[in-house]
Amino acid sequence: MTIKAVVFDAYGTLYDIQSVGAVADEAFPGYGQIITQVWRQKQLEYCWLRTLMKRYQNFSVITRDSLVFTLRCLGLKFDPAVFERIMDKYIRLDLYPDAKDALAALKDRKLAILSNGSSEMLNALVHNTGLDGVLDATISIDSKKVFKPSPAAYSLIEARLAVSPADVLFVSCNPFDVCGAKSFGLQVAWIEHVPPEAMVSELADRERFAPLTLFKLLRMQMDELGFVPDYRVHALSELPKVVFRAAS
Amino acid sequence: MTIKAVVFDAYGTLYDIQSVGAVADEAFPGYGQIITQVWRQKQLEYCWLRTLMKRYQNFSVITRDSLVFTLRCLGLKFDPAVFERIMDKYIRLDLYPDAKDALAALKDRKLAILSNGSSEMLNALVHNTGLDGVLDATISIDSKKVFKPSPAAYSLIEARLAVSPADVLFVSCNPFDVCGAKSFGLQVAWIEHVPPEAMVSELADRERFAPLTLFKLLRMQMDELGFVPDYRVHALSELPKVVFRAAS
Repeated sequence: MTIKAVVFDAYGTLYDIQSVGAVADEAFPGYGQIITQVWRQKQLEYCWLRTLMKRYQNFSVITRDSLVFTLRCLGLKFDPAVFERIMDKYIRLDLYPDAKDALAALKDRKLAILSNGSSEMLNALVHNTGLDGVLDATISIDSKKVFKPSPAAYSLIEARLAVSPADVLFVSCNPFDVCGAKSFGLQVAWIEHVPPEAMVSELADRERFAPLTLFKLLRMQMDELGFVPDYRVHALSELPKVVFRAAS
Repeated sequence: MTIKAVVFDAYGTLYDIQSVGAVADEAFPGYGQIITQVWRQKQLEYCWLRTLMKRYQNFSVITRDSLVFTLRCLGLKFDPAVFERIMDKYIRLDLYPDAKDALAALKDRKLAILSNGSSEMLNALVHNTGLDGVLDATISIDSKKVFKPSPAAYSLIEARLAVSPADVLFVSCNPFDVCGAKSFGLQVAWIEHVPPEAMVSELADRERFAPLTLFKLLRMQMDELGFVPDYRVHALSELPKVVFRAAS
């Protein structure tokens, strides 16, 4: 298979969304992890539900609304400054430590992000983390006003990069995104952050049904949606091998 | 406001989906509750994701797929007979104890179910629980091949009952469904099973971030989707009062 472009999901794939945990924990000691997980879950749900309801709002609005939900339901009082401090982390998320080296190794391919994030959030994030010199395009779904995994969202790759879907390797850690991209016709690499054996052994011990374990289960295990990734890797650093092997 | 028809969501609203817990616990002792919660979460996600992906499968397929996901991720081995025993509960769910009396009190209105369930599952469930003599219609979204909260799903009410959306009271315990129905233009009563004070006090004690508490938070607290219900009640038994007060 030819791979002419490598296109990355942003949140959770190049960028570690768990890195909001520390900021949230500073604002609400002891609640950092639970805020992070509930916030992420509701952020995704609101993307999907608003697309179904035909009530699109951009990812910035949805990220705020889902944080409001999270803090309200956890019974946490907040003032606007605290709220903005947590929100601000979304445009300064940590890159995964191997992200820059992986991108550098792939620089003879077209490189891009395709994300549910709004153009404004993504451009700020890419700029703040120094990826603007590395990527050929930062593609937001906001011109289509439907979120991934809608086919129209993935169609933006060909529109922007002029590479046909069969020649694109799409990279995501999010199982729903892997399935959506496969369903659309892209080649797909899934970054599986938790090896399944570790998950099962953690879950087998019932005393450890902790919130984090549950969210790992909901968000980090491959979904049963009738699609499987072409490639499974455990880190961005394994991608160059996949791309160059595919080409040979 | 006139209320000419009262239309109910099925799963979680007339029928207690938590009642699968006992059957699941018999098959996998100690895992009944966790299976119930993960299964429900993935069942909803797959409805939404398949609608977005334009890869519709009916609710029966989705319910099986989400149970497969759940048992696989919990590391639970099963044979086909055990799997079918758990699945079978979905067509024999317990009615909430006040469901029949509430429906009887409302019998001068048109009464119906509008559900994401497939026609086959819903008809079996309604028959097995003796509601077939009480309801004017059991409406499945499967003729439209899109799940709630898509507007096309709610449009089936007028198509089947010949009552305009403004004259329908839609009843659901599911916040996403409440928002979808309001967005479409129905009157909506939300059945709030957990009073918010109880939720907050449970969550304030961080030691109790148990799986069930988390799922209550994700699925039973009103979402931030820009809509609020017209009526909030805590049980089906409070509905006749709402309907007759609205009429006077």
